Amino acid sequence: MASEIRASEIGAPLDDRTVRRVQDSFARQGLMAHLGAVLHEVRSGLVVVRLPFRPELTQQHGYFHAGATGAIADTAGGFAAFTLFPEDSAVLSVEYKINLLNPGRGEFLEAVGRVVKSGRTLTVCQLEVNAHHGDSVSPVAVGQQTLICLRGRPD
Amino acid sequence: MASEIRASEIGAPLDDRTVRRVQDSFARQGLMAHLGAVLHEVRSGLVVVRLPFRPELTQQHGYFHAGATGAIADTAGGFAAFTLFPEDSAVLSVEYKINLLNPGRGEFLEAVGRVVKSGRTLTVCQLEVNAHHGDSVSPVAVGQQTLICLRGRPD
Amino acid sequence: MASEIRASEIGAPLDDRTVRRVQDSFARQGLMAHLGAVLHEVRSGLVVVRLPFRPELTQQHGYFHAGATGAIADTAGGFAAFTLFPEDSAVLSVEYKINLLNPGRGEFLEAVGRVVKSGRTLTVCQLEVNAHHGDSVSPVAVGQQTLICLRGRPD
Amino acid sequence: MASEIRASEIGAPLDDRTVRRVQDSFARQGLMAHLGAVLHEVRSGLVVVRLPFRPELTQQHGYFHAGATGAIADTAGGFAAFTLFPEDSAVLSVEYKINLLNPGRGEFLEAVGRVVKSGRTLTVCQLEVNAHHGDSVSPVAVGQQTLICLRGRPD
Repeated sequence: MASEIRASEIGAPLDDRTVRRVQDSFARQGLMAHLGAVLHEVRSGLVVVRLPFRPELTQQHGYFHAGATGAIADTAGGFAAFTLFPEDSAVLSVEYKINLLNPGRGEFLEAVGRVVKSGRTLTVCQLEVNAHHGDSVSPVAVGQQTLICLRGRPD
Repeated sequence: MASEIRASEIGAPLDDRTVRRVQDSFARQGLMAHLGAVLHEVRSGLVVVRLPFRPELTQQHGYFHAGATGAIADTAGGFAAFTLFPEDSAVLSVEYKINLLNPGRGEFLEAVGRVVKSGRTLTVCQLEVNAHHGDSVSPVAVGQQTLICLRGRPD
Repeated sequence: MASEIRASEIGAPLDDRTVRRVQDSFARQGLMAHLGAVLHEVRSGLVVVRLPFRPELTQQHGYFHAGATGAIADTAGGFAAFTLFPEDSAVLSVEYKINLLNPGRGEFLEAVGRVVKSGRTLTVCQLEVNAHHGDSVSPVAVGQQTLICLRGRPD
Repeated sequence: MASEIRASEIGAPLDDRTVRRVQDSFARQGLMAHLGAVLHEVRSGLVVVRLPFRPELTQQHGYFHAGATGAIADTAGGFAAFTLFPEDSAVLSVEYKINLLNPGRGEFLEAVGRVVKSGRTLTVCQLEVNAHHGDSVSPVAVGQQTLICLRGRPD
């Protein structure tokens, strides 16, 4: 497949134009701003989103809600796919699946979306969410996601 | 399995005490209040959560963000499982998977969580999210979720 | 979307030509023959596959192996999608997810694949596997699956 | 959690007794023998299963059937979890999800199951299936799986 990427390219630096396209699109996501999520890193096929703790993000026991965990994981993966799409295209999540490993507690969550297969139409990402508390990092969730590239429809 | 339930019991009315336990737990979820989600219906093994549209809930094209869709779906399923748990127990999501069928646009999203298997330890739910716009209802997502019952740990 | 189907059409009878295309393709699946699976029903967006019990299909406790359950569920969903595709196209599974509800024991397993969303490129199916033993039917698994329509590539 | 394992222990060598428990259980799986699957490697929290190509394992285009891919992935993950369980316990798959990346073609498929979280009750594995053809290795599928430890029920 023409647009197939090599594992070695994942995480490589990107040109400014692509980084700006991701930043602009992220800034237009009302939900990310409302949750307080921050675009932390944008690389080729790899995007990191951080979410600082706020009581507004909790479930009934006071930890990060699985829905917040899922929302930043889905977003990180979506933009990771988007970095590899042609210019006049948009990204949509087809599906995602999340396994919640441990309650999310700490100062912030960090979601990493990483492309594992980039096809002409579909892209598959692996998702990982960790909680950071001082120097300690603990796994919160792992996921898998499928995305579609909509051509001729600028994002 | 002792706690196996019959399909016919799903959706039956619940005693006030159980309904109140669900309402109290929902009210303690900071994320649901922050998103503006409302607990719409609480029945035996079936919970409905509604989410009115706000620009704070959107992705980059102005529709409901897949993360918001996932968050209310996960919550509806979690509480649907919880209605069938013994009194001194808590619920945790083990994993969930969501297929996004159509962009979520309309006045509100409605997520239905429905128990399909209630075991002593694990419960499986089916999740469905629809968008409501005037009289029209359109499917937004379907999902599947696994939950665990933590005994001796009041929610 | 032009090829969107109505829920009411799912399960409707099909013309002979489409039924034959499904039967021919099923017959070319070496795995289905090797497992002893049978194409039981072919309707519009709905296909049923049966798998009679054999010791060759078991896991270590003597029940149907989850891999056999998954294999017929994936196949039923794949052909359910295929019944709605245009003539010169092929079907590929993008992903599937299975929740195993109860050990599969009985005379045969029956997998039902049912289209819930048929798009131009992607189709989503719900999967259900039940075990039949005399008059009793017990749920074995539920699943969700995404399929892609490859146009211009006869199956 | 007491039985939490460190990432560094995954892949470490195992005592002979545990390796033999896995081999015995694998040998009792009728499906693995029927497919021709071989237990290739058994390490702490990591199991590799190989499946040589046979026409009996194909889908309609002559490649490995997604159901065969799923079956060996599920098995590799199940036994990876099992290596970390106490002696008088059995393993059951709760659910698994597979993304099919490329058609499976080649001399054999190799499925790797790797524990990412080992809890007292639930274990989560990552699954990977690659096709080997001469010196070339190509990714076929990635997956995520949840397993339950049944105590007091020897496998």
